[in-house]
Amino acid sequence: MSAPTEPSRTSDAPGRGPDPRAERSRAAALAAARDLLIEQGWSAVTHVAVAARSGVGRTTLYRHWPDASGLVRDVIAERISTAHTPPTGVLRDDLIRELDGLRRLLHDPVSDRGLRAVIERAGVDPVFARLKEALYREGSRVFRTVLDAAKARGELAADLDPDLAVDQLAGPLMYRRLLAGRAVTAEYVERVVDDFLAAHAPT
Amino acid sequence: MSAPTEPSRTSDAPGRGPDPRAERSRAAALAAARDLLIEQGWSAVTHVAVAARSGVGRTTLYRHWPDASGLVRDVIAERISTAHTPPTGVLRDDLIRELDGLRRLLHDPVSDRGLRAVIERAGVDPVFARLKEALYREGSRVFRTVLDAAKARGELAADLDPDLAVDQLAGPLMYRRLLAGRAVTAEYVERVVDDFLAAHAPT
Repeated sequence: MSAPTEPSRTSDAPGRGPDPRAERSRAAALAAARDLLIEQGWSAVTHVAVAARSGVGRTTLYRHWPDASGLVRDVIAERISTAHTPPTGVLRDDLIRELDGLRRLLHDPVSDRGLRAVIERAGVDPVFARLKEALYREGSRVFRTVLDAAKARGELAADLDPDLAVDQLAGPLMYRRLLAGRAVTAEYVERVVDDFLAAHAPT
Repeated sequence: MSAPTEPSRTSDAPGRGPDPRAERSRAAALAAARDLLIEQGWSAVTHVAVAARSGVGRTTLYRHWPDASGLVRDVIAERISTAHTPPTGVLRDDLIRELDGLRRLLHDPVSDRGLRAVIERAGVDPVFARLKEALYREGSRVFRTVLDAAKARGELAADLDPDLAVDQLAGPLMYRRLLAGRAVTAEYVERVVDDFLAAHAPT
């Protein structure tokens, strides 16, 4: 998933590159929105607060982001660019590596706060609902590829439900971080993967 | 965990029961706050909006709930009174029954929205941080009792970490509901429990 860039493009002159001043304004606005999101949550990311913090004029902000939720969305989408590495074919390694990406994401202040915002707003704001869908789809994509390949190689039970599998891999980390409020270590990730493999070994 | 009742008590006359009119106002305010929470999330639960919807005066609302977050807290705390049943001593049954309580909670509109609000606000609002702690502690309490007893009976690996165990039982349901946006069925609960037991059988 790539960050939506249309808003800043509206200020480009046709046939030339992006306007450097518009790019700077956009970056300053997003940096201010990011700080507000971390400190006080999505509801603090208003046009007024972002203008005061970034020095970018409110008119400019409204032109680029007619709704404040678009600002929050862009902050989150730029940060949560789940960096996947191509699967190696070694099931345990591939699962650990993918899940370690989620672990790092959950320990990054911006994506942690962003994920919480998405979970809270998805039911009531279509901007966040679309973002949640994209994050879930993109976040589980490599897991599904890895699991399918392992099933084909006979390393996992053939009737393993891929949705359940993703829930069982990602769920414990999310719960531990978002609700229990505990740290997720690299060792924890390995235990989750090993327990998953023990439960789904082919019979 | 019981709903905090101090606010309405302030209007009781000493030596008599609660003032019926104050009780009615409190119930009307909480009903309006609940509807707003379901429809638009925690940020819509303001004194102004609750007054308009319930007919309860803003002065009364401010007296009972100086902060709007207290109103949201009371709505959630009244609803999420995780109904535990005493463990029977049959491990699989006890885990399924407890986890089915979480399943029902995740499918109830008020507690679903309340849980999302708690997850989002806990890092930035102490009222929600305390509520999250209480929900986690109370929600995992019976699981810990059941797991301890099973370890003592030799039905689970002796070195099973109870925190990891709770994450592995509750995490998949939370992830499936809050992020994947899928339904959690009773059959799904059984599969999560059976996979958990397969991973943690004593060696």
